[in-house]
Amino acid sequence: MKAMVIEEFGDSSVFVEREIEKPKVEPGCVLIHVQATSVNPIDTKIRSGAVSGIAPQFPAVLHGDVAGIVAEVGEGVTAFRVGDEVFGCPGGFKGTGGALAEYMLADARLLAHKPKSLSMEEAAALPLVTITAWESLFDRAKLKKDQHILIHGATGGVGHVAIQLAKWTGATVYTTASSTEKLEIGQKLGADVGINYREESVSQYMDQYTDGKGFEVIFDTVGGKNLDSSFEAAALSGTVVTIAARSTHDLTPLHSKGLSFHVTFMLLKVIDEDQRHIHGEIIGQIAQIVEEGKLKPLVDAKTFSITEVSKAHEHLESGKAIGKIVLVNNW
Amino acid sequence: MKAMVIEEFGDSSVFVEREIEKPKVEPGCVLIHVQATSVNPIDTKIRSGAVSGIAPQFPAVLHGDVAGIVAEVGEGVTAFRVGDEVFGCPGGFKGTGGALAEYMLADARLLAHKPKSLSMEEAAALPLVTITAWESLFDRAKLKKDQHILIHGATGGVGHVAIQLAKWTGATVYTTASSTEKLEIGQKLGADVGINYREESVSQYMDQYTDGKGFEVIFDTVGGKNLDSSFEAAALSGTVVTIAARSTHDLTPLHSKGLSFHVTFMLLKVIDEDQRHIHGEIIGQIAQIVEEGKLKPLVDAKTFSITEVSKAHEHLESGKAIGKIVLVNNW
Repeated sequence: MKAMVIEEFGDSSVFVEREIEKPKVEPGCVLIHVQATSVNPIDTKIRSGAVSGIAPQFPAVLHGDVAGIVAEVGEGVTAFRVGDEVFGCPGGFKGTGGALAEYMLADARLLAHKPKSLSMEEAAALPLVTITAWESLFDRAKLKKDQHILIHGATGGVGHVAIQLAKWTGATVYTTASSTEKLEIGQKLGADVGINYREESVSQYMDQYTDGKGFEVIFDTVGGKNLDSSFEAAALSGTVVTIAARSTHDLTPLHSKGLSFHVTFMLLKVIDEDQRHIHGEIIGQIAQIVEEGKLKPLVDAKTFSITEVSKAHEHLESGKAIGKIVLVNNW
Repeated sequence: MKAMVIEEFGDSSVFVEREIEKPKVEPGCVLIHVQATSVNPIDTKIRSGAVSGIAPQFPAVLHGDVAGIVAEVGEGVTAFRVGDEVFGCPGGFKGTGGALAEYMLADARLLAHKPKSLSMEEAAALPLVTITAWESLFDRAKLKKDQHILIHGATGGVGHVAIQLAKWTGATVYTTASSTEKLEIGQKLGADVGINYREESVSQYMDQYTDGKGFEVIFDTVGGKNLDSSFEAAALSGTVVTIAARSTHDLTPLHSKGLSFHVTFMLLKVIDEDQRHIHGEIIGQIAQIVEEGKLKPLVDAKTFSITEVSKAHEHLESGKAIGKIVLVNNW
């Protein structure tokens, strides 16, 4: 089969098209005829070698997010049949299949039936970011309907999904972004209040929206210096969840305010055989929420074919994408 | 009434004996005839001015932990009567009474009946550290009986109580200390395994006791560099709770392992009128656990009278105390 592989770590130009062996279906797995995939920041980090410990062996087929059609069903799999439309984030790293190919081998526990109301491209945009947002908001922050949550990064992959899931819960949602255009998108997705972080300081928006008391729950999808802003914006006994914490921080605000702080790294459950079923269950629920019309992916205006994966990575790394970048199988 | 007060921030010698006005009992409060108090690190930080924002006004009566006899009962208080023996941590900072005096005014919601099986000195050793350990283990880490917990600081004020509460829950308890003597005490308190952190590296004891996988729950009662060791020793998706985080740390291990991290600062609930009742409820439960013989304070061999408070603070700051330092009312 055809695949876009990397034979070494490098910049976005490192992908090459190769003919590789089609994976054989294994017990508990299905073989997916890939229709679409999407780029997540972790894919660019695996590609560059920044997280080489979790990279697949060369020649490596990257990308976890997939939407496609079940082509073969392994022994013991009862939830899916040949021809079923499925989606999920079943790989893209060490020991798993990747979606930048005609076919992807996937543990059936990590998949769900694709929502009928979504195209393959839209379905491929959802799995990693939605599972991440779900684990962050519900498993970690235990977000409840009467709470006020600040979500940083309104139009980011995880941010735009988090806004919708938080609203689905009934919480009051504040969101930050760098422009009026992005904030308008965030508010269309359901955010009650949009905050332009380039125009308002943390203390200004804390005063304006919380009487200076801070936010009960903060979901930081940005990291870096923004994490310090999150600690600053948290209320006494508040909760901060982030997806990016590979950095050094003064923890004094966590002490003074008795904060809880969580880092969500969704791949850990994909690695752990005993926990994989949890992801399948989450995206099963996500599919229902999509069908209820409460969740829709934001797909960037630029879409690519899988053979254009270098351009897709370049676009992600430019920081200019709004929502998810999707790639369609053009073989 | 007589009191040991501070009229300025300073070192342990800053306390002076003064005759000050006896507090008038207020609605919802009781006036406690102080029998004993104990020193906590927060008392030394308030004294030195390190946390001046929460210090009482000069002349300031410090110390939160108290055991004593109810002398007067304020309007609306039904849980206590004159002559009742009580204990709790109802003050020692801005806007509250302090225990370094003959009488302490205390919000009744922050008190419980003293366990009959404890002396006044023993009862005064418990409140702050036990509430801190309770909130850390149960409200934050949600410790369960089948879990493995690593508790740093076997013979510290909070550590020695945490060992007993974790065992009471049924968890398997590993504890660290700097000497065989301290570890023997930790094991007598119930720890299953004692680890001398001066003789074993984190990776050594992770290998030995967890097959290199790390501990599900870690309670760090030490802070500073030890917090980095805690992050290192945590299992994938593990939980680290600390009571000391006024420092700067590389959070990469929290990201790579998807950790949850909590800072417990028990005074925050004392400050919050709406949450005070929670502390009264916790020490009520603690009193029961004491009566069941499952919890006993470790009182340092050196005890002091209240007028010797300077020596007591000096002893705490020497780092040589084992367990809690208690002061008895000698007026």
